[in-house]
Amino acid sequence: MLTYSFADTGPEPLYIHLYKCIKNDILDSILLPGTKLPSKRSFAKNLGISNITVENAYAQLQAEGFIYSVPKKGFYVTELPDKGVMPFNSIRTENKNTEYGTKWHGSKIESSKEEGSQFEIDLVSNTAPPGKFPFSIWARLMREVISEKSSELMKKSPWGGIMELRSAISLNLKQFRNMEVSPGQIITGAGTEYLYTLIIQLLGYDKIYAVETPGYKKIAQIYKSNNVACEYIPVDNSGIIIEELERHNADVAHISPSHHYPTGIATPVSRRYEILAWAAEEPDRYIIEDDYDSEFRLAGKQMPTLQSIDIMERVIYINTFTKSLAPTIRISYMVLPVTLLEKFHSKLSFYSCTVSNFEQYTLAKFINDGYFEKHINRMRNYYRKVRDGLLKEIKNSSLSGISEISEEGSGLHFLLKIHTDMPDSEYIEICRKNKINVSCLSQYYTGEEKNHDKENKNNKERQHIIIMDYSGIRLEDVEKTVKLLCKSLNLPG
Amino acid sequence: MLTYSFADTGPEPLYIHLYKCIKNDILDSILLPGTKLPSKRSFAKNLGISNITVENAYAQLQAEGFIYSVPKKGFYVTELPDKGVMPFNSIRTENKNTEYGTKWHGSKIESSKEEGSQFEIDLVSNTAPPGKFPFSIWARLMREVISEKSSELMKKSPWGGIMELRSAISLNLKQFRNMEVSPGQIITGAGTEYLYTLIIQLLGYDKIYAVETPGYKKIAQIYKSNNVACEYIPVDNSGIIIEELERHNADVAHISPSHHYPTGIATPVSRRYEILAWAAEEPDRYIIEDDYDSEFRLAGKQMPTLQSIDIMERVIYINTFTKSLAPTIRISYMVLPVTLLEKFHSKLSFYSCTVSNFEQYTLAKFINDGYFEKHINRMRNYYRKVRDGLLKEIKNSSLSGISEISEEGSGLHFLLKIHTDMPDSEYIEICRKNKINVSCLSQYYTGEEKNHDKENKNNKERQHIIIMDYSGIRLEDVEKTVKLLCKSLNLPG
Repeated sequence: MLTYSFADTGPEPLYIHLYKCIKNDILDSILLPGTKLPSKRSFAKNLGISNITVENAYAQLQAEGFIYSVPKKGFYVTELPDKGVMPFNSIRTENKNTEYGTKWHGSKIESSKEEGSQFEIDLVSNTAPPGKFPFSIWARLMREVISEKSSELMKKSPWGGIMELRSAISLNLKQFRNMEVSPGQIITGAGTEYLYTLIIQLLGYDKIYAVETPGYKKIAQIYKSNNVACEYIPVDNSGIIIEELERHNADVAHISPSHHYPTGIATPVSRRYEILAWAAEEPDRYIIEDDYDSEFRLAGKQMPTLQSIDIMERVIYINTFTKSLAPTIRISYMVLPVTLLEKFHSKLSFYSCTVSNFEQYTLAKFINDGYFEKHINRMRNYYRKVRDGLLKEIKNSSLSGISEISEEGSGLHFLLKIHTDMPDSEYIEICRKNKINVSCLSQYYTGEEKNHDKENKNNKERQHIIIMDYSGIRLEDVEKTVKLLCKSLNLPG
Repeated sequence: MLTYSFADTGPEPLYIHLYKCIKNDILDSILLPGTKLPSKRSFAKNLGISNITVENAYAQLQAEGFIYSVPKKGFYVTELPDKGVMPFNSIRTENKNTEYGTKWHGSKIESSKEEGSQFEIDLVSNTAPPGKFPFSIWARLMREVISEKSSELMKKSPWGGIMELRSAISLNLKQFRNMEVSPGQIITGAGTEYLYTLIIQLLGYDKIYAVETPGYKKIAQIYKSNNVACEYIPVDNSGIIIEELERHNADVAHISPSHHYPTGIATPVSRRYEILAWAAEEPDRYIIEDDYDSEFRLAGKQMPTLQSIDIMERVIYINTFTKSLAPTIRISYMVLPVTLLEKFHSKLSFYSCTVSNFEQYTLAKFINDGYFEKHINRMRNYYRKVRDGLLKEIKNSSLSGISEISEEGSGLHFLLKIHTDMPDSEYIEICRKNKINVSCLSQYYTGEEKNHDKENKNNKERQHIIIMDYSGIRLEDVEKTVKLLCKSLNLPG
C-alpha cells in the first residue's frame, strides 16, 4: 500500500499534506492513471491518521480532477482528459516536447487542468456544442433496434457493414451529393482514421501519399505511423497545386476539395478536372476525397464531388458521421470505385467490420426516417446564427478597423486576419491565459521549402490569421468570444 | 433501367425467365451487391409484361437469397453472406483462387448458397450457437445506459477507452486470471485485428513477427497485409519452439500459450519461462500473448498468463469480448507493459478510440454487475455438455474402433484422429456434400520446410485429424453431428 511520512508536515492541515503527496505522485507518474487508491479506512489505518483526513484529501483530489470515484468500488487516478481534434495540441507537442509530449501522464493532467478543460471559449476543439444532438430520438431508435433486431444483432456484420446502413448511405449520397453509388461500393469502419489504414493496405506501402499543407496534421501523422512515404503539398487559392503533386512524385493525393481546413477553400470545377487528369495520367494514381464537414457549407453552390465526375475509377470518397452527428458515433465510410472494390474484396475482406451491428442499425434508421437530414439542416441554421453573430460582434468591436474576414461561407469556420505586430505564438499564449483557446493559420503549415525569401514572404502572409472555428461555440457565448479576442490584443471590447 | 428480351423464352413461365435473367446477371457481377432493382411497376411497364410476373420473379429471387427487400424502398441485390471466422475458407481461397477468391460477388453468393449457409452442422465457423447470449439483460443494460449516461454518451471516448470499462476489465483480470493490471495499461479497440495493427505501429515495421504453425491463418494475413516480415514458427507439444524463434531471427512472437488453436495445447510453465527468457535476451524482443478463448478451458489447472509472470515488461496481453460474448460486440483490449504504454502514449495516442462509448458503458455494466462471469460459467457448462455428448456419441458409434481423441480438455474443440486412407481433402468434400462443414489439422500448417523426408513424416502424422470445433454446435445436434461424420466415411452411424 502507499505510504507517506507525516513527520514534517509543518503548519498545514494533515489532509492538505496527504493531498499534496498523492498529487505529486500522480504528477510524477508514480501513480499511473487508472490506479486504484487504497480504501479510505485501510489507508487511514495504515498511515495512522483519521478516516476523515483521508476523506478530505480524496475529496480535494477529486474536486481537482486528479482522481475519480466508481460507486461501490473506490477511487482511481484519472486518465488525462481527451483533448479532442488536435491540430493545435499536436503542434505544441511537436514544438515543446519536454513540456507536453514525452513526459508521462502526470504533467499531461496538469497541463490540461491549466490549459485544456478550463477554457471558457474554445475555437480549437472542433466538436459540436453539447445538447445539439437529438439524443432522445437516437435513444428511441436504439430501443426500437433492440426490440426489432434482436436476432440480427447477434450476427456478425458483413465485412463492409450491414446492407441497411450502406443502402441508406447510398440513397443519402444520391439525394444530397448527387452521387450514384451502389451500396456494395460503400465500406463502413470505426472512424476515418481506421479507413485510412485500410486504404494504405489496399493501395500499397510502396506508394507516395500526398497531404495538403496547410492541413490537418493528423492525416500525415497516420501515414507516417503506418510507415508509408508522405509528402506535404502546398495548396493555393484553388486547392492542391498539381505541379507540386508532380514534383513530389505523389501517387495518392489525400485532399479535401469541398471544404479545405483550415483555409475554407472549395476547389473550383476547373481544378477538379485538373486533379482528375493528374490521376488519369498514370495507372496507379489515386485520389482520396476527404469530404469531412462538407454538409455544413453555408454559402456558395455545392460543387460536384470528384467521385461523381470521375469516370476513370480513381477516386476514393470518404466521409464520417462522427463529425456530422456526434463524437461518440464512431461510424465512417468510404466509397470505392468498382475495380478497387474487387481488389479490396480479394485482399482485405478477411478483416471483420469494426462497427457494431447495433450502431449500424440505429444509424440506418436515423437516416431512413429522415432524422439525419433534419439534424444537418438544424445544425446549419444554428451555425449560420453563430457565424452571423460573430461577424456582427466583430464589426461592432474595436477589431473592426484592424481586421479582415474571409471564407465566411465555408461553414464551421472563417478566417480573421488581424493587423498587429504581435507574433502568433504570443497572441495564442495571451488568449489562453484569458481562457480562450485559439489557433492560427501559421500553425497548420508543414514541410516548408528552404527558399528563405519565399518563406519570409509566405510567413508574413500567413501571420495573424485566426482560424475562427465556431463549431463548438454556443450562441450565448458569441459576445464573450469577441470580447476575449479583443482583450487579448489589449483592445477595448 | 435493366432490359431483358422475352423473345425466346420457350415453354417456361415468363417469371422464371425473368428470374433466371436477373440471377445470371447477379452471378456474372453485372448486378453488383447492393444495387437497387427497378420498382415492380416501372420494370413491368418497361419490359412490357405484367406486374405479377415481376412480382413472382422477385419473390423467387428473394426466397433464394439473391435479393432482399427494404420496406418502402424496394429490392436490392444481396451482399455475400459473411462466412464467419475463416481458417477453412481462407485455405480454400488460397488453393482454388479462381473458384473462391478472385471472381467477384456473383459466384461468391452462389458458392455460399451451395456450401456456406446451408450446412446442417458447422464444425468450422467458430461462433456460439444462437440464443445463448443473454440478450434481454444486455438490452436492459443498454436502456439503463441510455437513461443514465446521456451526457457522457455524447462525449468522445479517451484514446484508451472509457475508464469504467477499463477498470471493470482490470478487476476481472485480477479475479479470473490473477493479473495485476492498472486500468491505465488497458487499451480497448474495435476487434483484435485492429489492435494488431496498432501493435505493429507501436513495435515497428522493421521487426520480424513470428506466428505459430499450425495456427490461425488470419493472424499472418494481417501482418502481411500491414507490410511487415512474418515468419511461421512450428509448435511442438509444449507450444512454440524457442530454437525456431531464434533461427528465424524473430523479434516479436505472437502466440497463444493458454489455448493454442487448433491443437488445443496449453504451454506448460517451464516453456513459458523459456519464452520469457528468449524475450529478455534482446532489448527489442516482445511477446504478444493472445488469450482468445482461454475463458472456456474445460479441464486442467489454469496456467498463469505470461503477462502475470513477466517482470521484464515484454508481454502484450490481448483478449476479446467478441468471442466470449457475441460477434456483434466489437470490443477487444490489450494490456501494455508500462514502458510500452509510455511509448504508445507519445506515438499513437492521437488515434481516436474505435469503440463507441455506448457499447463501452454497456459492457462495463455487464461486467460490474456480474453478468459476464455468469455468462462464461453458463457457457462453460453448456460446452461441457456438448463435448461430453460428442465423446459419448463417438464412443457408441462405428467411429469408436478406428479413432482417437485428444486435447478434450482444451475447451471449444478437441482433436479426432481417424484411421483411414481417405485424403483429408476428399473427406472434407464428402462431409460438405453431406451438409457438415469440417476442417482438418493438416489445413492449418503453413511455411513448411523443404526437407522432404521430414515433410512426409510430418504430413503423415498430421493427416486424418478432424478439428472437432463444437463452439457452434447445439446440444440437440450432437447425435446428428457424429452420424454425419460416420456417413461421410461410409460407416454406419
